[in-house]
Amino acid sequence: MEAALLEPVINTVTELDSLFKPKSIAIIGASQKELSIGNVIIKNLVHYGYTGAIYPINPKMSEIRGIKAYTSIFEVEGDIDLAHVIVPAPSVPQVIEDCGKKGIKAVIINSAGFSEMGDEGIALQKKFLAIAKEYGVRIFGPNCQGIINTDPEYRAYCDFTFTFPKPGNISIVALSGGVGAFIMQSLFDLDTGMRLYASNGNACDVSISDVIRYYGDDEDTRVIILYTEGLSNPLEFMDVVKEVTKKKPVLAMKSGRTVEGAKAAASHTGALAGVDISTELIFEKIGILSFHNEEELCQVAIAFANQPIPQGNRVGIITNTGGPAVIATDELVNAGLQLPALSERAKEILHKTQLPEATIGNPIDVVATGGGIHFRSALDVLMEEDDIDSIFINFVTAPFTDTDEVARNIVEVSQMKKKPVICNFMTNMSLERFQVTSRILKDGGVPCYSFPTTAAKALGALYRYGKTRARNIGEANNFKDIDHNKAEVIMHQAVKDGKPYLSADRVYELLNAYGIPVADWWLANDIEEAMSAANGMGYPVVLKAESTEIVHKSDVGGVAINLKNAIDVAEAASRMVNVFGSKNLKFFVQKFMPGGKELIAGVSVKPGLGHLIMFGLGGVYVEVLKDVVFKIAPVTKVEAGEMLSSIKAAKLLDGVRGEKGINRDMAIEIIQRVSQLVTDFPVITEMDMNPIIALNDKLFVVDARMKIS
Amino acid sequence: MEAALLEPVINTVTELDSLFKPKSIAIIGASQKELSIGNVIIKNLVHYGYTGAIYPINPKMSEIRGIKAYTSIFEVEGDIDLAHVIVPAPSVPQVIEDCGKKGIKAVIINSAGFSEMGDEGIALQKKFLAIAKEYGVRIFGPNCQGIINTDPEYRAYCDFTFTFPKPGNISIVALSGGVGAFIMQSLFDLDTGMRLYASNGNACDVSISDVIRYYGDDEDTRVIILYTEGLSNPLEFMDVVKEVTKKKPVLAMKSGRTVEGAKAAASHTGALAGVDISTELIFEKIGILSFHNEEELCQVAIAFANQPIPQGNRVGIITNTGGPAVIATDELVNAGLQLPALSERAKEILHKTQLPEATIGNPIDVVATGGGIHFRSALDVLMEEDDIDSIFINFVTAPFTDTDEVARNIVEVSQMKKKPVICNFMTNMSLERFQVTSRILKDGGVPCYSFPTTAAKALGALYRYGKTRARNIGEANNFKDIDHNKAEVIMHQAVKDGKPYLSADRVYELLNAYGIPVADWWLANDIEEAMSAANGMGYPVVLKAESTEIVHKSDVGGVAINLKNAIDVAEAASRMVNVFGSKNLKFFVQKFMPGGKELIAGVSVKPGLGHLIMFGLGGVYVEVLKDVVFKIAPVTKVEAGEMLSSIKAAKLLDGVRGEKGINRDMAIEIIQRVSQLVTDFPVITEMDMNPIIALNDKLFVVDARMKIS
Repeated sequence: MEAALLEPVINTVTELDSLFKPKSIAIIGASQKELSIGNVIIKNLVHYGYTGAIYPINPKMSEIRGIKAYTSIFEVEGDIDLAHVIVPAPSVPQVIEDCGKKGIKAVIINSAGFSEMGDEGIALQKKFLAIAKEYGVRIFGPNCQGIINTDPEYRAYCDFTFTFPKPGNISIVALSGGVGAFIMQSLFDLDTGMRLYASNGNACDVSISDVIRYYGDDEDTRVIILYTEGLSNPLEFMDVVKEVTKKKPVLAMKSGRTVEGAKAAASHTGALAGVDISTELIFEKIGILSFHNEEELCQVAIAFANQPIPQGNRVGIITNTGGPAVIATDELVNAGLQLPALSERAKEILHKTQLPEATIGNPIDVVATGGGIHFRSALDVLMEEDDIDSIFINFVTAPFTDTDEVARNIVEVSQMKKKPVICNFMTNMSLERFQVTSRILKDGGVPCYSFPTTAAKALGALYRYGKTRARNIGEANNFKDIDHNKAEVIMHQAVKDGKPYLSADRVYELLNAYGIPVADWWLANDIEEAMSAANGMGYPVVLKAESTEIVHKSDVGGVAINLKNAIDVAEAASRMVNVFGSKNLKFFVQKFMPGGKELIAGVSVKPGLGHLIMFGLGGVYVEVLKDVVFKIAPVTKVEAGEMLSSIKAAKLLDGVRGEKGINRDMAIEIIQRVSQLVTDFPVITEMDMNPIIALNDKLFVVDARMKIS
Repeated sequence: MEAALLEPVINTVTELDSLFKPKSIAIIGASQKELSIGNVIIKNLVHYGYTGAIYPINPKMSEIRGIKAYTSIFEVEGDIDLAHVIVPAPSVPQVIEDCGKKGIKAVIINSAGFSEMGDEGIALQKKFLAIAKEYGVRIFGPNCQGIINTDPEYRAYCDFTFTFPKPGNISIVALSGGVGAFIMQSLFDLDTGMRLYASNGNACDVSISDVIRYYGDDEDTRVIILYTEGLSNPLEFMDVVKEVTKKKPVLAMKSGRTVEGAKAAASHTGALAGVDISTELIFEKIGILSFHNEEELCQVAIAFANQPIPQGNRVGIITNTGGPAVIATDELVNAGLQLPALSERAKEILHKTQLPEATIGNPIDVVATGGGIHFRSALDVLMEEDDIDSIFINFVTAPFTDTDEVARNIVEVSQMKKKPVICNFMTNMSLERFQVTSRILKDGGVPCYSFPTTAAKALGALYRYGKTRARNIGEANNFKDIDHNKAEVIMHQAVKDGKPYLSADRVYELLNAYGIPVADWWLANDIEEAMSAANGMGYPVVLKAESTEIVHKSDVGGVAINLKNAIDVAEAASRMVNVFGSKNLKFFVQKFMPGGKELIAGVSVKPGLGHLIMFGLGGVYVEVLKDVVFKIAPVTKVEAGEMLSSIKAAKLLDGVRGEKGINRDMAIEIIQRVSQLVTDFPVITEMDMNPIIALNDKLFVVDARMKIS
């Protein structure tokens, strides 16, 4: 295995070894009934060549499928590492207690009838889980498929599915057994090996995070495939998986991305529901590659299984047919790759070694009559080129070519592992001679695809992972110039008042305390004070009726803009008194700043995860174009910079049509300070700063709203 | 075949019958050399069971591959329908002359060495083509693969590829033989039949359009797959194919969409080059479904081969596993489909017929233990639902289910052909029992896929074609209120002057003549006249230095805006005299209209195709967001409306934040009038109207530029 091409990992013995590397397995609820789960699991273990001891447990049978059966686990001499439990739900707590007493360390509960079935099932699940914890038994499931370990040392097929994968280095974890099974099947169909498999159903104890941590530590797992419909403990997931993605690629698909899809997910898991963007944000934050197409995910995985990660985005193409090279080029370029021109040295060699009708360039077209030596010289040249990071091959099996010779040369060069080699292999696999060619390529670890776009997507994903792995978002900044005391006093008072929305003065004081620049303002108790405040800050000003009772001020006549003198202020204030009455009414006077670019920032809360920070361009950009981006708090400086760069109209921030760009550093700092504010005060559940005006190389929050709970 | 589900077609005998339905074939350049093209074609014809006569032509052989050979075609008694020509390029003209004399109606020239090789080859190609025309011989190629007709009546495998498809109703035409071959291979791998195949290389005579016309008239072709890297005669293509898409779906992929891809295409075809958007615009205009992924294209095609087109976007899902239904739902919704709730009637039936653990909803989850009767009742219910237009099935082959029985029920319902049925069939095809199940589904005409997203994309494409077929763009409007005489005088004079850019007064007069509203203007000969013109139209005004020598006026001080009185006008005009001198200088006075929304429209020319009309929002929207759309002229009213709706910021046209929307009818009319103008005067090669100001429910062109050649 080429794990060394990624980063070295240390194989640690963990408590999940009993689950994934069992030396003995009891099947509690073993059955003689063909096709029942308690029979199929035994059949699968035997069929797959499980290397350990199998103990069918059934009170009435002396043997099952020719294997000695026991009436109880206590009858089994010696230790049992792992037990399958396939008894009716109500009996499970007693069985778990027995397992604990027997010293079994891991249990797969295949039986259903727990949290997926409502209150009664939830209670039952809690009950057996408490017992398990008491005895230190790890529970996998319930209502699950199980695990598979293809390692020849174990060959533990602890599952009732019916695909028997060959050993490999791709490991799978799937919330849905149905999806897990077809991902495994897909790798099988792609003639690719698998390492470990886990589908943990209700996941009451061993979580997806636990499994991924284990895969992360498993030396022979080179790439991890994750399928989920949501995350029950996103913080744990982030903590665990961010360490794993540094070591090896995690390719993931989260479904339930549409309202209807989320509804369908809720109806079958009973637990997770609601469209949320946070799972994809988590993937992004911790460097998981996200996919929206499971076929593509599987196809891409086989490239990760064998090939090194490219150092950069420069690809060289070798082809023996025209059209497919055009198609591949389109997709490679779309994926962010470039096709550099060949060096003079390279062209010189190729002119000597290629057929006269070959095209010397990038792509290199060795033409259909090109054989092993022509492919080889092209491969060698690209391997030597400093400007090339990866090699893409279109290989159509022309009948007049020694295709095996071509394949052997591709394999030899690929096995140097200097640069990734991806092969679009276009052939008729019903012809025996091309099956042989295919075997040479696949056994040689060359990822083979049947379509140029598909192959190009695989190389694109390798490149994307290379970028992701190299990305270091750093740690969140901890600004020292913050007036914590003042902020705490304000928040304390706000919580004590018990109103959901903070008054404007508190919001602005809080922003001030956190070093977030706000437009000059004054909270005046009466009209006189408003006039003098306006005189003090200079005209024009904005006047806002201030009372926590009034939320959407501008809709009800509570805002007057562009007041040019004290008389204007007095008149506007009087009108507000007429509308709202003078009781409890104060006047928020603020410097009016026409022109400038409108930005927005905001905060929302995802239960179990924390705050999401939003940034975008204000006005029509947010309202019509929805041109905003989100990140999970705490947001680092790098991430804040990415937020600015990733809005669709990012160029507007740099200024267009001769106008000046905004002060990017200041915007990046504001995003970080907002992140720090809500991280320090989790009680803040909503915050809108709309607009933030960018004017004369400065930024000012001009209107802000904050909700606590 | 279910061609009747689309529209009835009449099978016409055409001149291409000799090519696609030959009763006898001569191979001129037949060879004994294994793997040579002159040998492989004979081998393929025999192997595939060609039903007609084969005449190998070779001056030195008496037989080839056991078939009597002839020294010359003149030696053959009786007629020859079709000849393959595999002789060196220089001999081809003579061979074509012989073919003409022999009365051969169609020739496939496999030999290379013509237009793809530069000037000499082009001359040779012209030479044999002239001879062919003289004798009425149709030429296919040169430098091509050939054709395949799988019809059992012919089984004409006139090609040197090595995939032997079974008969079906998908026909393929591909510019690139490499791509054509792997599309054919892909259908074969998908266990799907093919009808006709054509890869015509240099396409010097029989064009892609000719082939598609032929496929359109071929009764047994239900769906056409097209691969191209560009169109050599786009107008002919549009004329021909728009008739075909009314009868049957055309699924197409155009590659060379990136600069690098176009370069790769140019290097291997030698003919077509340059990224252009016009091919995709042609596809859109005439109702071709465009794809950017050839694997998806092939997968989608098999749904079109057997299933009817849905009447609408409402899909019902039947599943026996949870996760895959979630994935499918996401993709179906992304493709524009909806999942309506089931009627009370439906739910009542399902509650009676489904297992207790089934989920009654949309999706209907019949659960893994559900068998044939459960699938059947769900299928029957959805077939009867008025609110359901199509059925999507997730079918995982659980070991404890009679999967054959499930498959038979799916087939029975699917064969009613009332609504399309698409099946995501998740199984292990290495197990014999599931091969049987698969056979039942496939022989029953149910399109089967291995991934939920892939299956959902196929149903999405059926829906997309339904929409496309129902779309009627109508005919281009011919506005009667146009002052043709005036326009002709202006253009005549402009052409006579021989300058590329028209003067502003001419541009505006021309727009006026075509009923395109322009802001008030006056061309003044001197400062005095400018002042009096400004007085006449009312302030503020814009003043522009007018001379055809000055192109980018505003960059060089040639534009003064917001002039508020006659003195301002005089001063601005004087400054312009200082900059440009008074010789030939005139002053363009125009009403200044601040505020309002900026729109833009424009025209460019694609050689061989005609004008493209562009529309979008002006200012930063065009500069930063590139938010513009294009259509090919003549643009109809429907198309002009689509242009307004399809820009990203389309909502801005309706007004946001309380502002009024623009006058859509007027914008739609302006687009059509521009289209009519450039269609009437093809000499116009460029036109920019930027901005067009929308203000107070009116639109005015405020600045316009026009180039002729």
